[in-house]
Amino acid sequence: MNNKMILYILSIILKLEAAFLLLPALTGLIYREREWAAYFGAAVLCLAAGFLMSRKKPEDTTFFTKEGFVIVALSWIIMSVFGALPFVFSRDIPNYTDALFEMISGFTTTGASVLDNIDLVSHAGRMWRSFSHWIGGMGVIVFMLAILPSSGANMRLMRAESPGPSVGKLVPKVKQTAGILYQIYIVLTLIEIVLLLVSGMPVFDAVTISFGTAGTGGFSARASGFEEYTILQQGIVTVFMILFGVNFNAYYLLLAKKWKDAFQIEEIRWYLGIIAAAVVMIAINTRHLYPTAFLSFHHAAFQVGSIITTTGFATADFNLWPELSKTILVTLMFIGACAGSTGGGLKVARMIILVKSVRLDLFRAIHPRGVKTLKMDGKSLDEETVRGVSAYFVTYIVLFILSNLILSFNGLDPVTNFTAVTANFNNIGPGLSLVGPMGNFGMMPWYAKYTLMFDMLAGRLELYPMMMLFIPAIWRKR
Amino acid sequence: MNNKMILYILSIILKLEAAFLLLPALTGLIYREREWAAYFGAAVLCLAAGFLMSRKKPEDTTFFTKEGFVIVALSWIIMSVFGALPFVFSRDIPNYTDALFEMISGFTTTGASVLDNIDLVSHAGRMWRSFSHWIGGMGVIVFMLAILPSSGANMRLMRAESPGPSVGKLVPKVKQTAGILYQIYIVLTLIEIVLLLVSGMPVFDAVTISFGTAGTGGFSARASGFEEYTILQQGIVTVFMILFGVNFNAYYLLLAKKWKDAFQIEEIRWYLGIIAAAVVMIAINTRHLYPTAFLSFHHAAFQVGSIITTTGFATADFNLWPELSKTILVTLMFIGACAGSTGGGLKVARMIILVKSVRLDLFRAIHPRGVKTLKMDGKSLDEETVRGVSAYFVTYIVLFILSNLILSFNGLDPVTNFTAVTANFNNIGPGLSLVGPMGNFGMMPWYAKYTLMFDMLAGRLELYPMMMLFIPAIWRKR
Repeated sequence: MNNKMILYILSIILKLEAAFLLLPALTGLIYREREWAAYFGAAVLCLAAGFLMSRKKPEDTTFFTKEGFVIVALSWIIMSVFGALPFVFSRDIPNYTDALFEMISGFTTTGASVLDNIDLVSHAGRMWRSFSHWIGGMGVIVFMLAILPSSGANMRLMRAESPGPSVGKLVPKVKQTAGILYQIYIVLTLIEIVLLLVSGMPVFDAVTISFGTAGTGGFSARASGFEEYTILQQGIVTVFMILFGVNFNAYYLLLAKKWKDAFQIEEIRWYLGIIAAAVVMIAINTRHLYPTAFLSFHHAAFQVGSIITTTGFATADFNLWPELSKTILVTLMFIGACAGSTGGGLKVARMIILVKSVRLDLFRAIHPRGVKTLKMDGKSLDEETVRGVSAYFVTYIVLFILSNLILSFNGLDPVTNFTAVTANFNNIGPGLSLVGPMGNFGMMPWYAKYTLMFDMLAGRLELYPMMMLFIPAIWRKR
Repeated sequence: MNNKMILYILSIILKLEAAFLLLPALTGLIYREREWAAYFGAAVLCLAAGFLMSRKKPEDTTFFTKEGFVIVALSWIIMSVFGALPFVFSRDIPNYTDALFEMISGFTTTGASVLDNIDLVSHAGRMWRSFSHWIGGMGVIVFMLAILPSSGANMRLMRAESPGPSVGKLVPKVKQTAGILYQIYIVLTLIEIVLLLVSGMPVFDAVTISFGTAGTGGFSARASGFEEYTILQQGIVTVFMILFGVNFNAYYLLLAKKWKDAFQIEEIRWYLGIIAAAVVMIAINTRHLYPTAFLSFHHAAFQVGSIITTTGFATADFNLWPELSKTILVTLMFIGACAGSTGGGLKVARMIILVKSVRLDLFRAIHPRGVKTLKMDGKSLDEETVRGVSAYFVTYIVLFILSNLILSFNGLDPVTNFTAVTANFNNIGPGLSLVGPMGNFGMMPWYAKYTLMFDMLAGRLELYPMMMLFIPAIWRKR
């Protein structure tokens, strides 16, 4: 392990976090809240720690795959450990475990909260929560790659942080790829903010809600959630949630005017098809709960968009919906958004590969000597990718079961525990029963909170980086 | 497809079933129940149908893998379709859908019942339920292979019916292998019957309970279940449930005096290890529910043995146990017994391969060019077996989710539906909540019952045979 290089990159992350923390500090100043000082103080602390850790620039800047994983995992942990401090300083969330849970939930774009009433939290605190969604959505490492001079090892970092079974470069250079991704991300976010402002939403809400939408996070701006917003505003958010769940490659292809390629991405067609099917089924199933067919369609669309993209906003308490609708939503929680989007879950691309590999396996059972390969977007998938997806799925289920076992010590009902793990592991936020849209995670005992924190990080970073930390061999000196 | 050959084998199955049906008919005669005639009549019907279908012996007796799958699937379906008739004739279960559910549950050794009070069912009917467990446990095809002259294609049939990731022949000839398996099966069953008789259990109970234990079925002999039996009798059943969940290869090795090989089977060591760990955890977790530590240990051992072997007997209403114990039991439901035993579930061998492949994948993530293979029992596993296990697991989860989606239309609580699918797909029987040990499946709507019937058959026959039936290409003439 190249420990010096790891330390150096972590120091950069902390310096970036210092800069990020200025936004909530500024928000506090604007709203004349004394909490601004907590966020400013935390920024100074991050900066100081960052400088302490990077006094010497390492001479040997090479690193291998395993260091890539470790760097990404540690970056996210250190970012959360420091990012949780201002919540405690400001007494917005006095308990550090709770503050850390909220922070990890923010960065991983989960949106699961320990807070009972967020109206009691300062504007500075709420801005930090929502801004962390935005940072975590595209990823802090990708951000770092976009602004730092590039080196050969960077692709390893980007692969380790970006979601999806296979991460491709849009352009030959990693730095440029990261830059293009962030440009698309910023522009889409700005469009949403402007549209929400035009629709009459207050500035604070428009900005925080857009951050939450862009990162597919799910922290809301106020305790009433989406109740006070108009149908139009809810509709705008619906559209943008679905847009941020799309593979960003599509936007790049659109920018490059490769219209045909963009519209032929198989994953996006499945993604939109699944959304359409789920919306229709839920709209019919919940028709009796709403005065008009339009409203049941509206809420179905919002909820489906919110859940499949793993955002987790709620316009309706879907915990009270019929079982069929709830089962569909829980199924969508596992599917998740497109690879290469800001969403979580298993990713539509993986589901396609899994379903196709089941079909292939049936074919092979019938024709033991038949030759057939898996195709996606017209191209053959190599065995290694398919094998990787299966292995990922198995690892995912194993971690899922272990988490459920640990949580079951808390004695809460099985639906609460099962959907708590589902909602955190897939970075959604709300589950069902006690952790439904109107509930929160505050009542979970400490070991359940730490398990869910691990799940959120493992889910956002696609399992391996977090698992690496538990392999003793990783920590031996080279 | 060699349709004539398929028809011919199905006719043999029906003739065998005619013979099997004589046992419940005889039971009815002994107990002077007029229901005996229903079972005798069904036997005559099976025989007649069998002769009608086999008027011409096919000239072309060759068949391929896909025919092997189709034959096995159709054999089990036709056996259940005919086997359910006497339940309706005798009015033991007047509704045919319910009778079919009960019959499939019997043959697949699930033990899930639609009956509210089995004391109202005739002795003949109860004997048929339990005997069907015994037939289905080792498998009717294996039975046929053991008594019929062998042909080259038979191994395909045996592979398609026997559980586990890789089915090996004990001896070079299929006929002999099948014969040895049935001999072990019969002897073990007889030992259990004798021990239960010696312990003072009534003959009818000793025989039916032993059939249920041997096939890892789970239908009980009377409505009170195991309540009226002594601790010793419950203990004997505990031991035999665990014995029937062991890979039968071990018994063959013991018979061949290869002690060392028998005790070195990795799967069995894991199997016993998992049982020990689960028993200890549940005994501690339920200690407060029982007057003595011995009793909590006793019930934990019985329940763990019953669930991991997918038998499904219950000495305690584990639906009332603490959440941790319930979560452990549900986890065991998925793991299941050893490959090559009469138990269901995913099988311990598959779990070992899955866990090892997760470890291997982590290793590969760290060392992209490293060379390492999966080993089991000291031998390297070929890539195809490992890939097959992953594919099986993925198929399993896909079918599991689809079944849950269909069941959720019934509007029952999610724990009921989730564990109903779990308990039927893994051939266990009781789940939690409404389908717990004290509940039954009678209240499920018809589409839920047919879904669960498919799940029971798919689970028992290891997915592929049942899935084949839904592939149009299979039905084209060759």
